[in-house]
Amino acid sequence: MMSEPVNVLALVGSLRRGSYNRALLNAALELAPDHMTIVTGMIADLPHYNADLDTDDKPEPVERLRAHMAQADALLIASPEYNHGIPGVLKNAIDWLSRPAGRSPMTGKTAAIMGAATGMWGTIRMQSHLRRVLESTGMMVVNKPRVLVNKARTRFDESGTLTDEDTRQFVQLLLENLADLTIRLRR
Amino acid sequence: MMSEPVNVLALVGSLRRGSYNRALLNAALELAPDHMTIVTGMIADLPHYNADLDTDDKPEPVERLRAHMAQADALLIASPEYNHGIPGVLKNAIDWLSRPAGRSPMTGKTAAIMGAATGMWGTIRMQSHLRRVLESTGMMVVNKPRVLVNKARTRFDESGTLTDEDTRQFVQLLLENLADLTIRLRR
Repeated sequence: MMSEPVNVLALVGSLRRGSYNRALLNAALELAPDHMTIVTGMIADLPHYNADLDTDDKPEPVERLRAHMAQADALLIASPEYNHGIPGVLKNAIDWLSRPAGRSPMTGKTAAIMGAATGMWGTIRMQSHLRRVLESTGMMVVNKPRVLVNKARTRFDESGTLTDEDTRQFVQLLLENLADLTIRLRR
Repeated sequence: MMSEPVNVLALVGSLRRGSYNRALLNAALELAPDHMTIVTGMIADLPHYNADLDTDDKPEPVERLRAHMAQADALLIASPEYNHGIPGVLKNAIDWLSRPAGRSPMTGKTAAIMGAATGMWGTIRMQSHLRRVLESTGMMVVNKPRVLVNKARTRFDESGTLTDEDTRQFVQLLLENLADLTIRLRR
């Protein structure tokens, strides 16, 4: 069962070039189990959500991301915390993917959350909000482990490689649990 | 004291042309006390927040909105709830206005929240998140009344005028309380 293929769409909540969360996703790409394929989605080019644009002929970047979500079995998010909440740019992507109500490509799929921050609390407040938001779209969110990467400057080297061994093991376990939950829920 | 001028920046969390939340803000413009001036800010043209763009020379729409916030004494938000949370487009505006850390034009000012929804719960979950987010930027958020406009289709007429008398009184009281809190905190 554990070797069935699992296709994952990954989103990064920071657009910064040197983002620790992008570096965290890069670690996930490296640590993912062999039967998991991770495709990274583009959120930077999405327009702001506008119900007037939410028609059968949506803007091209929206249709592209929706297609990636439709093809995926699961969603993986790596995101910073902005003002104790979800970055607007990431929430905007979810707002688009959540539509149309009742026929979202997210619904019934699985999700896992990771976050990195330079401070002490490792995105815990963002993750609490994001769990509620993903659940509201009908996703099942992996419960353990909570991958809260605090003091990020000490856990990555200068080239952006995740060097902290404990964090690497947490990321690996999160992906294994995401694969496991995804395959179990297929049945 | 109650007649001191109070300058308010207003933001609407929905970009939809026929938005009930824009209609709710229009009611606020009409019901505001005489000593309150409300300027509506543009959030549709902001780029997605990107720390690499968050320099001394920010994109023009960001600088414009920041200047409006700097000139205002208070922030008024009218917003829908998307996926049990804050619309990404609105959170993105807050992410920009919250910067730079420690020198945000929001810090130390007052805020009030309103929301309209066609469903039963009147944006209560969005408002709970948004209070936490605004507080994290150092704003003082008016506590009462909670302006939760549910079943919005029954409370506005076809031209978008807020016709529900109870809701009009709640909006008026919210603005009076915002003015009062703003003036008290000046001392």
